[in-house]
Amino acid sequence: MIYEINETHDPNLKSWVESANDPNTDFPIQNLPFCQYRLSASPDRGYEHGVVIGDKVVDLYRLFAIGTFSRELHIELGEDITCSATVDGIADNDKNLIAILRRNLVRVLSEDADALTRDRVSGCLVPIGDVTFEMPFWIGDYTDFYCSIYHATNVGSMFRPDNPLLPNYKYVPIGYHGRASSIVISGTDIKRPHGQNRSDAEAPPKFIPSKSLDYEMELGFFVGQGNELGTSIPISEVEQHIFGVCLVNDWSARDIQAWEYQPLGPFLAKNFATTISPYVVTMEALAPFRTKAFERDADDPQPLDYLNGEQNQKLGGLDINLEVYIQTEKMRAENIEPHMLSRSNTKDLYWTIGQMLTHHASNGCNLQTGDLMATGTVSGPEKSERGCLLELTWRGTEPIDLPSGEQRRFLEDGDEIIMKGFCEREGFRRIGLGECCGKILPAWGS
Amino acid sequence: MIYEINETHDPNLKSWVESANDPNTDFPIQNLPFCQYRLSASPDRGYEHGVVIGDKVVDLYRLFAIGTFSRELHIELGEDITCSATVDGIADNDKNLIAILRRNLVRVLSEDADALTRDRVSGCLVPIGDVTFEMPFWIGDYTDFYCSIYHATNVGSMFRPDNPLLPNYKYVPIGYHGRASSIVISGTDIKRPHGQNRSDAEAPPKFIPSKSLDYEMELGFFVGQGNELGTSIPISEVEQHIFGVCLVNDWSARDIQAWEYQPLGPFLAKNFATTISPYVVTMEALAPFRTKAFERDADDPQPLDYLNGEQNQKLGGLDINLEVYIQTEKMRAENIEPHMLSRSNTKDLYWTIGQMLTHHASNGCNLQTGDLMATGTVSGPEKSERGCLLELTWRGTEPIDLPSGEQRRFLEDGDEIIMKGFCEREGFRRIGLGECCGKILPAWGS
Repeated sequence: MIYEINETHDPNLKSWVESANDPNTDFPIQNLPFCQYRLSASPDRGYEHGVVIGDKVVDLYRLFAIGTFSRELHIELGEDITCSATVDGIADNDKNLIAILRRNLVRVLSEDADALTRDRVSGCLVPIGDVTFEMPFWIGDYTDFYCSIYHATNVGSMFRPDNPLLPNYKYVPIGYHGRASSIVISGTDIKRPHGQNRSDAEAPPKFIPSKSLDYEMELGFFVGQGNELGTSIPISEVEQHIFGVCLVNDWSARDIQAWEYQPLGPFLAKNFATTISPYVVTMEALAPFRTKAFERDADDPQPLDYLNGEQNQKLGGLDINLEVYIQTEKMRAENIEPHMLSRSNTKDLYWTIGQMLTHHASNGCNLQTGDLMATGTVSGPEKSERGCLLELTWRGTEPIDLPSGEQRRFLEDGDEIIMKGFCEREGFRRIGLGECCGKILPAWGS
Repeated sequence: MIYEINETHDPNLKSWVESANDPNTDFPIQNLPFCQYRLSASPDRGYEHGVVIGDKVVDLYRLFAIGTFSRELHIELGEDITCSATVDGIADNDKNLIAILRRNLVRVLSEDADALTRDRVSGCLVPIGDVTFEMPFWIGDYTDFYCSIYHATNVGSMFRPDNPLLPNYKYVPIGYHGRASSIVISGTDIKRPHGQNRSDAEAPPKFIPSKSLDYEMELGFFVGQGNELGTSIPISEVEQHIFGVCLVNDWSARDIQAWEYQPLGPFLAKNFATTISPYVVTMEALAPFRTKAFERDADDPQPLDYLNGEQNQKLGGLDINLEVYIQTEKMRAENIEPHMLSRSNTKDLYWTIGQMLTHHASNGCNLQTGDLMATGTVSGPEKSERGCLLELTWRGTEPIDLPSGEQRRFLEDGDEIIMKGFCEREGFRRIGLGECCGKILPAWGS
């Protein structure tokens, strides 16, 4: 089932946490993303699990422990949620339970909460400035898809001009396995990777620092309840298995990629690092921003039956704006604000996230709570909607001018990439996905 | 460093565990592979960690707990090994410590052990028949390489007749990320996967059970000590990071693979299941079976510097025989022994496992203790050395005759694939890798 719009999405809902009512916050009471964090002042303490509201994090463990909620509610939610109070323990539940949790979080955080409740919950709030965000899940497997037809067509045009879109593209949500160990949280610096570069086809390849380092603007989504090995997930039930979304920067070294990727796909070009934002925005928070699946051209094939569902066609899409900014070292030194490189939207994806997940499990592959999937670069039909430098600079042939007077074909050392995501719809409160940032450090030995 | 041959490899060493002295055992005292298991009679008890000798498993935790070893040795080995006594906790150590552990295991299990020692250690032995083997490690990431030039050339000839071996092959140890969640232990049944099949290029693909299910005979190896993100592992130090090996069956659905694999590589064709053997044969046990790296043709390029090391060239190879057997349902019913399909050897791999690991971390990718890497199908130059049905039957065009009167192009429901591995060298005791088995179950709904 896809979550329906309900009273937790009411745009008039306000919180007694004042910062949540700021029209510019990513985290109004209508959002409430989950996160994992440490208290910066006590780095040796274990990880804490929380819900973000305004400029505060609500400590979930404490929230349950101090008797904020009734005994009946504890019984209804079950021990997985109320005792462990971890993001993992919450995500691995029936969506009805997660919805009950959300309603009750909204209740105790809303301006209608009574003084006693406010007083209790106040004791569970930590200023965002006091925490260091960690990976929201321990990620078992990471899968990256390739679901923007605009991105696939652009990239295909560069590498296979006579055959940009392969014949399988409109039948298969193309994906591949990425590296889970090198996924890092927003704010982690990214060291420029070494790799084999064969820009001169007449000479042997050289092992040198990548000369064409790129970002990829993607949407990530986390598996909620998993499935057993040897079972599949029907498209009609797929939303039960998606917990929430985050921003993903799938850093890519294009020179390494071009040389290594045949015949088994990208490997070292991608697995040196992938950055994610720390906030897991739940599918329920996103309910007002669901939209129809991509409208295929009349002569496009329809999805095969296992990828085709009424609800998926009607509401399987997502209307999330994704923005990419760059700030170079010179820009930072001269106090020049980050410069927007692109704005795209996930509604332009050829396949829905439900189709991606159904496809992934269609052969019996077991998905596990906390597995990360990503859409692939989200690009739109316009040039301003291209979600990576490879497309924006057309493989480096059309450099970008920056307000500092600099140009970029690919990323230079010191460049920071800042990704943002947000949802807007008339009659609803804007919610945001926060930021996903990373700065390029020089390669070792350079 | 590559382990040197020492007194633990002495072929005259015998054990007071009589079954270890059987010349046909895979597990003489010279082997001592690590494993993780449960007592079959107490399935609710946690996992135990052990060392296999003959037809017994030595319970490591108990072995340390009952004072088998001196206090000095406990201090020397450290708490990681002596208190946790897990395969993981052992693998994540300096190889000198692992060597000390091996010498002491050999000492207490050898026929020279005194009566008190024998008596104590006897209390730690569990008959293999009483245990259920589990995954030896919790595997974070799984990477599959493509390092047999014979396999790559054969497969390439079928799919790209004019261009069988791509230009990167002799420079790059080609690899890709596999799925960690669907790795299963030997003996687990494998359900035939569904997937998109486009055998008729004029019609749309169909979503049906795979018609060309295959196995792939591979050698797996486990990462011991890992490396930090952003650091690499020089080829001269790589053996420090390899803990041991196992057998791998990389089940493959060739019809799904042919249709989905471009441009990002195999995905659903492989991730429905991968089977591994339960025994981790350590690199030290393999010391007598190290051999030179693949001898390249005079007109082949030399490996780039980062993949080239004196010790790697001299001893980076492995002389391990790999055998594949099939037993169909009819053969089982008629008591016909499993039929050998191929015998190949890892010394025919174009790249050494050290080169694979160095390459993997050469861009700064972090490897973690327990990560599994596999070589890709191990095929040799002869037809009898082809490590999968795709090659043996040349994509189904040359079916194999079985002693039951049956033929096989690809795997049928009920077929069991049994893989074996062993090392033999004059002047040394034969050691084995055990078996890696899996039987095909019908697809759901069929």
